[in-house]
Amino acid sequence: MHWAEGFIAADWGTTNRRAYLIDGDGKCIDEFEDEKGILSVPKGGFEAAVQEIRERLGDRPLLLAGMVGSNRGWIEAPYVPCPAGIEDLAKALVWAEAEQTAIVPGVSFIDADEADVMRGEEVQLLGAYAAGLVSANALVCHPGTHNKWARLESGGIARFTTVMTGELFNLLREHSILADLLSGSAEPGEAFASGVRRGLDDECLTAELFKVRARVLLGQADAKDAPSYGSGLLIGADVRAGLRQRGEAEIVVMGRPELTRLYSEALRIAGKRCHEVDGEQAFLAGAKRIVELIG
Amino acid sequence: MHWAEGFIAADWGTTNRRAYLIDGDGKCIDEFEDEKGILSVPKGGFEAAVQEIRERLGDRPLLLAGMVGSNRGWIEAPYVPCPAGIEDLAKALVWAEAEQTAIVPGVSFIDADEADVMRGEEVQLLGAYAAGLVSANALVCHPGTHNKWARLESGGIARFTTVMTGELFNLLREHSILADLLSGSAEPGEAFASGVRRGLDDECLTAELFKVRARVLLGQADAKDAPSYGSGLLIGADVRAGLRQRGEAEIVVMGRPELTRLYSEALRIAGKRCHEVDGEQAFLAGAKRIVELIG
Repeated sequence: MHWAEGFIAADWGTTNRRAYLIDGDGKCIDEFEDEKGILSVPKGGFEAAVQEIRERLGDRPLLLAGMVGSNRGWIEAPYVPCPAGIEDLAKALVWAEAEQTAIVPGVSFIDADEADVMRGEEVQLLGAYAAGLVSANALVCHPGTHNKWARLESGGIARFTTVMTGELFNLLREHSILADLLSGSAEPGEAFASGVRRGLDDECLTAELFKVRARVLLGQADAKDAPSYGSGLLIGADVRAGLRQRGEAEIVVMGRPELTRLYSEALRIAGKRCHEVDGEQAFLAGAKRIVELIG
Repeated sequence: MHWAEGFIAADWGTTNRRAYLIDGDGKCIDEFEDEKGILSVPKGGFEAAVQEIRERLGDRPLLLAGMVGSNRGWIEAPYVPCPAGIEDLAKALVWAEAEQTAIVPGVSFIDADEADVMRGEEVQLLGAYAAGLVSANALVCHPGTHNKWARLESGGIARFTTVMTGELFNLLREHSILADLLSGSAEPGEAFASGVRRGLDDECLTAELFKVRARVLLGQADAKDAPSYGSGLLIGADVRAGLRQRGEAEIVVMGRPELTRLYSEALRIAGKRCHEVDGEQAFLAGAKRIVELIG
């Protein structure tokens, strides 16, 4: 089996995984997604879980990215420090099976005040640049469970910060006193915009969140607007944090469309222009570029 | 049964309740605490749950405060708007059983920008003033699941804001990616202080929280310090929000000693002096004053 004749790329996260079969011409010809995230794989069960990917997509070389390379995953792939380009990722692959199965390292950022890590997003970020979807110097927002704001410089990841907006929203929605109020879906609109404006202000998020309930109890807000308002609050605070690293670069929002549209709208409310990039397309571009580099 | 010959006061919250038997001289002569918070009482089960209090402490008139008067509790006692003094609470009691069982209303605050509610803390806040434990003009911090920062003016509650620090810390500790790291106990000390300083800064809490994990992964912080650091972060942000209403009043931290000591320490780090008041003592003083007023 040779990589140039086609390979499988998988983005294997905490709670789910997506795998794509790429043919010799670089075209994605098959794919699947399931809920076998790393937390659902029992100890010693990764060989079987990897084998299953090949059974579904074919017996091809395999490039794995995401939390599968973390200390809770299959084999730990040490972080590549910033500044990190796609060549750095290719050089630091960890080979789980010689010449056949490689794990992409995550990226870390450390300076005197900050420490941050990513796993999985680096393939998309650097893939988007490799495919010409973002400029060599850009601020990329990558929403998800843990939103990443990454500063690209000369086509590499220069620095980044993580905001755990998605996870916090889910915690509040599932387990908090706001659970009933936040259970609907968040949509762009006046309630969302009003939450965003509040979040962009220098307000204390933990205080503003409680007021989601108080406003409804006191008749100042409609319960049906609470999911959009609450989502706006969290995304507004997130955007405020992210814009600190801006400089004068273009701003790109990359990821799943249902999230990128909310972040784009929040950026617009913050007075910033941005464009959206599909995260899956960026992931495939990044995987292909890494495979070219090891070929 | 007459109130002046002794009564029972109960602070009946979401997850637990505490009840005290006060004799004719105003002395607490018996008490109990259990986990029969309002969420554990089945629909239609409040009469029995109230009866149980009398079975344990005696067949006396009963003053109930807290979430028992909310729309999820027994009988809803509408909020008294700010400014609210203890006389306002006494006038607005809701009588569940004529002359025998009264429910204390909560307090609301509304202005053009804010909306907030409390239930249960008002008895402690106004009781502390009635007993001379706080001045007529003071900023009172009342930590708990939902921390309240209340501005007392002329002995009444002029305004307040709620910060859901306790609930958020519990959510993170039980359900988040930080769960393992935050499972130990939070103690004042260098790690706590370092979290507080960060929280007091104008940082994005949802970004700082993720870095609790990143700092440990990258060797910048010791995992054993994470509960204190994380608690410091949340309390620092909370204190920053609370100090906005300060004016030049004295600052008082009221509640359970294991929480008040952390908030006192955070206030000290913020350069503020404060003193601590025991929340139970304040509750008993408030209950006695309300009973005097209805006597």
